Amino acid sequence: MNFPNKKTKEKKPVNKANLGMDLESVINDSNEFYLANDIAVIHKKPTPVQIVKVDYPMRSKAVITEAYYKIPSTTDYNGIYRGKYIDFEAKESHSKTSFPLKNIHPHQMSHLESIIKHGGIGFLIVYWNLYNEYYLLPFEVAKEYWDNSFNDGRQSIPYSEFKKRAHLIEESYLPRLKYLNVVDKIYFN
Amino acid sequence: MNFPNKKTKEKKPVNKANLGMDLESVINDSNEFYLANDIAVIHKKPTPVQIVKVDYPMRSKAVITEAYYKIPSTTDYNGIYRGKYIDFEAKESHSKTSFPLKNIHPHQMSHLESIIKHGGIGFLIVYWNLYNEYYLLPFEVAKEYWDNSFNDGRQSIPYSEFKKRAHLIEESYLPRLKYLNVVDKIYFN
Repeated sequence: MNFPNKKTKEKKPVNKANLGMDLESVINDSNEFYLANDIAVIHKKPTPVQIVKVDYPMRSKAVITEAYYKIPSTTDYNGIYRGKYIDFEAKESHSKTSFPLKNIHPHQMSHLESIIKHGGIGFLIVYWNLYNEYYLLPFEVAKEYWDNSFNDGRQSIPYSEFKKRAHLIEESYLPRLKYLNVVDKIYFN
Repeated sequence: MNFPNKKTKEKKPVNKANLGMDLESVINDSNEFYLANDIAVIHKKPTPVQIVKVDYPMRSKAVITEAYYKIPSTTDYNGIYRGKYIDFEAKESHSKTSFPLKNIHPHQMSHLESIIKHGGIGFLIVYWNLYNEYYLLPFEVAKEYWDNSFNDGRQSIPYSEFKKRAHLIEESYLPRLKYLNVVDKIYFN
């Protein structure tokens, strides 16, 4: 476990999957705008971490010296909007043609399913970085592909399907991502 | 920053404040019961941690080797119950006579206030460990004491006030803490 001389790579500051960093900050900025303007209270949950070792150096704050990333049991974002519980996961697609379902944890699918069953709003935000496009993907569409993948073996949702059944999210200055406009259109009409 | 020979204390597994561990597991167990029985979807948010350094040892998973606890910007628990957004913080009192307000972060107070403004349910669960009693403390009562503390200087809520204006939560086998029964009584009547 302890090889003090072993060479290790260091990166900082670190996100679970560095690739998702931009998407995360775009959504966080949007949520800050929504919060500051009293439109919605939506926060990113902290990255789940299993803490194993903590040092308490004298006169300074506790330092976590050994911890591991845990598989999330829920989605990354939740909160309240127009009196309704809202819950979503944000993912990135680096492909030109399809969004791989393996990007979503099974836990996250069943979590979103429960949320909807209990009367909440649940969806995914998918960023296609090659097109620089953000889509709100209704849970129901993701679920359809998820369930079918066990039958037809197709492990992804085609880009063409996003064009048809997901909703392009407009970018702006404030908020950077107007995803609640799309939520209005889909869930409050 | 780096003193490899410095002696450090080690504890594991570590909770932010070890004292709160039992309260947390009592609530987590209750939430698991509520989830498994399709009564509510309420989860504890992960402890917020600022990750600074991650090692990637060959053939094993990433190890976080430097991280720090962050001050939470929201409460610990949220979710959906009977179609409503629900949000609360759980705290412990080790006193016989009063619950110190300094146990609550200012961020958590303003977060709960926003939640209620947006139509959600917000409260605190306070465990008095000397009495082994759990109370649901409506946000409004906490807020009254919080606001007054800037005028009258009183930095705590007396136990006698819990007897009058908070709601004793019944313990049982499953769920360990029947706090949603109290929520029914206060918020759905």
